[in-house]
Amino acid sequence: MPHINLPKDLPGIRSLFAFRPETAKPLCELAEILLHAPSSLSPGERELIATYVSSLNDCFYCQTSHAALAAHHLGGNEKLVADVKLNFETAAISPKLKALLAIAGKVQKGGKHVMSSDIQRARQEGATDLEIHDAVLIAAAFCLYNRYVDGLATWAPHDPEGYRQRAALVADQGYLTIPRAVTAALG
Amino acid sequence: MPHINLPKDLPGIRSLFAFRPETAKPLCELAEILLHAPSSLSPGERELIATYVSSLNDCFYCQTSHAALAAHHLGGNEKLVADVKLNFETAAISPKLKALLAIAGKVQKGGKHVMSSDIQRARQEGATDLEIHDAVLIAAAFCLYNRYVDGLATWAPHDPEGYRQRAALVADQGYLTIPRAVTAALG
Repeated sequence: MPHINLPKDLPGIRSLFAFRPETAKPLCELAEILLHAPSSLSPGERELIATYVSSLNDCFYCQTSHAALAAHHLGGNEKLVADVKLNFETAAISPKLKALLAIAGKVQKGGKHVMSSDIQRARQEGATDLEIHDAVLIAAAFCLYNRYVDGLATWAPHDPEGYRQRAALVADQGYLTIPRAVTAALG
Repeated sequence: MPHINLPKDLPGIRSLFAFRPETAKPLCELAEILLHAPSSLSPGERELIATYVSSLNDCFYCQTSHAALAAHHLGGNEKLVADVKLNFETAAISPKLKALLAIAGKVQKGGKHVMSSDIQRARQEGATDLEIHDAVLIAAAFCLYNRYVDGLATWAPHDPEGYRQRAALVADQGYLTIPRAVTAALG
């Protein structure tokens, strides 16, 4: 049961967006820029970083919803997403994305865990300053979203098909429509 | 030295705002709503939560700048801010703020560390659902800001007077003017 009185028909972070629309707006704008807006990193790559950090933070709702989004962007390849969560170093992804996931994993522990050698590895694999910046900020942002979702004990559905359907919607429309949608859902 | 090529004359998160103005906007809007906009928690109380979480995350720039803001809002009482960082349970603050700081400290460790008993304590001390929500989100947000600032190895000045002057400015103008100011600073 959630720690505070949240709308009962909305799961995870969406119940929090409905509870506090003022903060929902910048939180969704940040997700839109980092995960959905045009970038030299594909939406699938960025959702994999979000999924990996959410799995390190053990946030069921975030890791399941962003895993579904990553798989959607990667042509439905749910096995690849599971491989990345299990051990990204041996997964069938680019050396550049492996280097960015290694940085994201350090950020999840704490900012000071990121070493010059981590940045050097990413550069050697072709990552730009903007890609390194965005990998750090995606990881940091999910340290917020995960704590927000679990710190207020929101509930999460367990049917994988529901996450797949929702992923198709968010992949198509992006994150900006979410605050309006949750408000509308409450009538 | 920062891990990526940032504007050299701006410290901490301001150098990152200048590097990526798109993400600066929602990040500053979030800070404005949580720390500066009207709330039943005073700006001093909210800046104390920000300072405490930043000190737990060992982020020098964030804990120093928000400690200066907290002290500014608390009539220049720098000792009280130091007392809260050292041991908030024995500091001269309200029982309600102590309960909210206890929740914030749990959120810093991870969302699942927040127990029903932590929420119950806050309620017994008079905290509303919105105040509990905002304490959780302030703590989660500083787990983002702290990781962002340290994960990219930004530099921070060490002169306390500079932080005091800047705190007076931000306390007066709020957080929304910061993205415009950093862009202007770069000419």
